[in-house]
Amino acid sequence: MPRPSVRGKLVQAGLETLHAKGFNGCSIQDITEAAGVPKGSFFNHFKSKELLVLDVLGPYGESNRVDMLFDESKPPLERLRQHFNFLADSYARFDFERGCLLGNLGAEIATSHPPVREALREILQAWSGIVAGVLRKAQAAGEINPDLDADELGNFLVNAWEGIVLRLKIVKNREPVDEFLDVCFRLLLR
Amino acid sequence: MPRPSVRGKLVQAGLETLHAKGFNGCSIQDITEAAGVPKGSFFNHFKSKELLVLDVLGPYGESNRVDMLFDESKPPLERLRQHFNFLADSYARFDFERGCLLGNLGAEIATSHPPVREALREILQAWSGIVAGVLRKAQAAGEINPDLDADELGNFLVNAWEGIVLRLKIVKNREPVDEFLDVCFRLLLR
Repeated sequence: MPRPSVRGKLVQAGLETLHAKGFNGCSIQDITEAAGVPKGSFFNHFKSKELLVLDVLGPYGESNRVDMLFDESKPPLERLRQHFNFLADSYARFDFERGCLLGNLGAEIATSHPPVREALREILQAWSGIVAGVLRKAQAAGEINPDLDADELGNFLVNAWEGIVLRLKIVKNREPVDEFLDVCFRLLLR
Repeated sequence: MPRPSVRGKLVQAGLETLHAKGFNGCSIQDITEAAGVPKGSFFNHFKSKELLVLDVLGPYGESNRVDMLFDESKPPLERLRQHFNFLADSYARFDFERGCLLGNLGAEIATSHPPVREALREILQAWSGIVAGVLRKAQAAGEINPDLDADELGNFLVNAWEGIVLRLKIVKNREPVDEFLDVCFRLLLR
């Protein structure tokens, strides 16, 4: 395995630190210390903490394994349920304390940092579109009513999920996830 | 009208400033400047910014007019729809940029400030319980299926709403609200 570059270490440590402490809750020094690199090296790679944020969103997105939604070996609704359970399990590893980096950044700095808002807008739109695609597959497979508006439901599910994750950070147990799964898969997606 | 006390000015300015800039995004000086009081006076009234947060949650909750949910002159589901529309209109006044103070604080500092987390837990639990109560009234009035689990749906709706508000901050138009209302009132609550 190649040794990670300084830039790679900063992205990895930035992801961890921003997720754990929030944008304004961590300093550039917190990030360079976590990366084990000299503080001054940060500005060789990023002009600002905001620009680092834009770079951690890619690796964060990959860690969420949206590719699972394309696994044609499983029925569409089962894929979708596994996707949400995978995310819930990833939050549980941090005792639900970190939540979703996308939601955290959206709540904290979407307004003060327009480039972050724009990046989040694109990511959430893409994710919602992928969920809508799974719903269309579920309609084609006869799993849910073909008259449902898949695009609207894709947006709704992703948005609702972000709210569920927020409540997870507050109650620190997975009850909000189980309620979400029950309401969505038993009452809504039929 | 009595002149507001220094403490009252700090609570009002704290609410505005925390809502606009976030907890770590504003300084105590930002708050005292917005209140038009000397910086030193802050600590005569609050030992920390965290303790001010706990004091602004009451006035913030009142501004959300949860009392509308108890207005027996209207059918339960109509009350609920008006409640969410009232909140959406209140966010629209700030071009959707501020979102919900509860969600913002939850995302940003629930983990780093346990007393804030506990206060948010109680507020969200109370709000969810009130929504559940409206759903039980809707069941009694024959508006929705009496077999639905009102407590589960109350939690789900409040959680989903907080996620909707997050997306509002990012897209800056009310489409997520209209999708939420359509999905919830046409597909779910029946």
